[in-house]
Amino acid sequence: MAIFQTLSPLIDAVQQQLQESVKSEFPASLKEPILYFLEAPGKKIRPLLTLLSCQAVGGELEQAMPAALGVELFHDFTLIHDDIMDKDDLRRGRFTVHKKWGEDAAILVGDLLIGLAYQKMLQCEARYLPRALNLFNEALIKVCEGQALDKEFEGREQVSLAEYLDMINKKTAWLFKLSSQLGAILGGAGSSEIAAMENFGNSLGIGFQIQDDWLDYAGEETSLGKKVGSDLKLNKKTYVTLKYQEVIAESSAAAKKYPPRLSDYHSLVELREVLYELGIADQIQNLIDYYIQDALDSLEKVQTLTDTNQLFQLVTALRHRQS
Amino acid sequence: MAIFQTLSPLIDAVQQQLQESVKSEFPASLKEPILYFLEAPGKKIRPLLTLLSCQAVGGELEQAMPAALGVELFHDFTLIHDDIMDKDDLRRGRFTVHKKWGEDAAILVGDLLIGLAYQKMLQCEARYLPRALNLFNEALIKVCEGQALDKEFEGREQVSLAEYLDMINKKTAWLFKLSSQLGAILGGAGSSEIAAMENFGNSLGIGFQIQDDWLDYAGEETSLGKKVGSDLKLNKKTYVTLKYQEVIAESSAAAKKYPPRLSDYHSLVELREVLYELGIADQIQNLIDYYIQDALDSLEKVQTLTDTNQLFQLVTALRHRQS
Repeated sequence: MAIFQTLSPLIDAVQQQLQESVKSEFPASLKEPILYFLEAPGKKIRPLLTLLSCQAVGGELEQAMPAALGVELFHDFTLIHDDIMDKDDLRRGRFTVHKKWGEDAAILVGDLLIGLAYQKMLQCEARYLPRALNLFNEALIKVCEGQALDKEFEGREQVSLAEYLDMINKKTAWLFKLSSQLGAILGGAGSSEIAAMENFGNSLGIGFQIQDDWLDYAGEETSLGKKVGSDLKLNKKTYVTLKYQEVIAESSAAAKKYPPRLSDYHSLVELREVLYELGIADQIQNLIDYYIQDALDSLEKVQTLTDTNQLFQLVTALRHRQS
Repeated sequence: MAIFQTLSPLIDAVQQQLQESVKSEFPASLKEPILYFLEAPGKKIRPLLTLLSCQAVGGELEQAMPAALGVELFHDFTLIHDDIMDKDDLRRGRFTVHKKWGEDAAILVGDLLIGLAYQKMLQCEARYLPRALNLFNEALIKVCEGQALDKEFEGREQVSLAEYLDMINKKTAWLFKLSSQLGAILGGAGSSEIAAMENFGNSLGIGFQIQDDWLDYAGEETSLGKKVGSDLKLNKKTYVTLKYQEVIAESSAAAKKYPPRLSDYHSLVELREVLYELGIADQIQNLIDYYIQDALDSLEKVQTLTDTNQLFQLVTALRHRQS
């Protein structure tokens, strides 16, 4: 997508500095898996949010770079530990760390990434440091809570959509919110600008996660880099499975015609068709659009936000992603 | 031991504040295992080091309390993740978190404990905050390195005593060093006092770990709360196994009489006897004493260190522990 091409020098700079955070003196059992993981190309959404949010409030990109690297290393830690818990063998089309080096190594690599993330955060400008670190740490706690809820939901029969939204707010949206918030703070923004960027990141994060859930059914396997329908196998609660259950529960006509749960389907093709038949596909698209629009509205609400063009383009590109 | 009785109000205060750091809104799958783990009584060595080091440089105990809680939560994180990697079923005489709640929960509980540890650290006095956090974070990285080396050594045939000492310096001593260093910093100490407390904690930590290795063979199973000789089963390299190998390798007479490795012994009683016969038991005791003395010397080196009496007693008690 065009915006990722425009931003590729920035993405490359982030990528390079991430790899440089891996010190040569690290033991091989840590160094190899971390470098393997970091060298995999990614969209670097969270650091881009930090950098472009800093730019949007009139700051220089370099002011936000430590935090941009911090949020990406934080994200990487969550991916590596979550992959263990979800028993996922593939990530970005390659073997996961625990699949390649074992669970013990993957636990330790994740732990080290937390340390490296804070190391970057500690390089933020001194006057913003306490606030930035408090927000960063609050996010670490919330993301753990969100992951715990996600795993708890796997073992439960009934989960409400409200509970689900609370879970993805913590597990996914909090880090998006942190990313844009930190960019604004480090760019020297005032409180109304920071609040706007906070809401921007939060709504984008919710929309992003619901879209992610959707792509697990509607996405193309090759571009997803993981098995389509993998959430289904884990009895993972997603917006799609819960919305389906809600629709069936609320209509006796639908309950007669369709099985009560998405996991009752054995064919992904049939499952997709039913999601369109029942109007669930459209409802989900509308909900994603609602959150994305709310995020974009935040950018327009505060007049002193300038240079938001690339943020707009990034959000639009994310909305149209197929993986 | 008398000093632990004297310090019991302090230990209780630490214990209570640790348990209060577990918020009621945490998901049950996190809250239950963390409270279970935190309620287990322990010696609270690291927070005591922080508090008593603060006292030794003339500070008030409360100034060091956030860091005291931070180092203990940090330590708890390492125990929970290490127990997964070491497949230990028991800790302090009770089931480990992963044994009781599964590995996924234990991974996440450890991650959350890192967040809670930083949360406490962020409450340190503002003027000392950047320095305290930098040291704390450096320790997190070093402890991960140390654990990685420990696991690497399990898979290696040859490990030198120098490599082993480097490993325990990172895995164990670094957190002891951090604990006493932070106490001094937060107590408002000058640079020579801080350096003295740094060396104190470091030497104490090395001595403590070698003694820990020794107690794995010489300790009483019931008071250890874990199986005596458990290190041996994992092919874990300890000061005892490596020293034995060195002694056998250096003496052809010994090599004829004794098997090349401690893991060749099937009787713990016989193994202990041989360690005494070969003089290894005495050499190890002497080495532990050397490090403990070096730690105590640090306390006497700096004249402005006052009120070190309880630190002295604590170190002496640790030296005479049987578990």
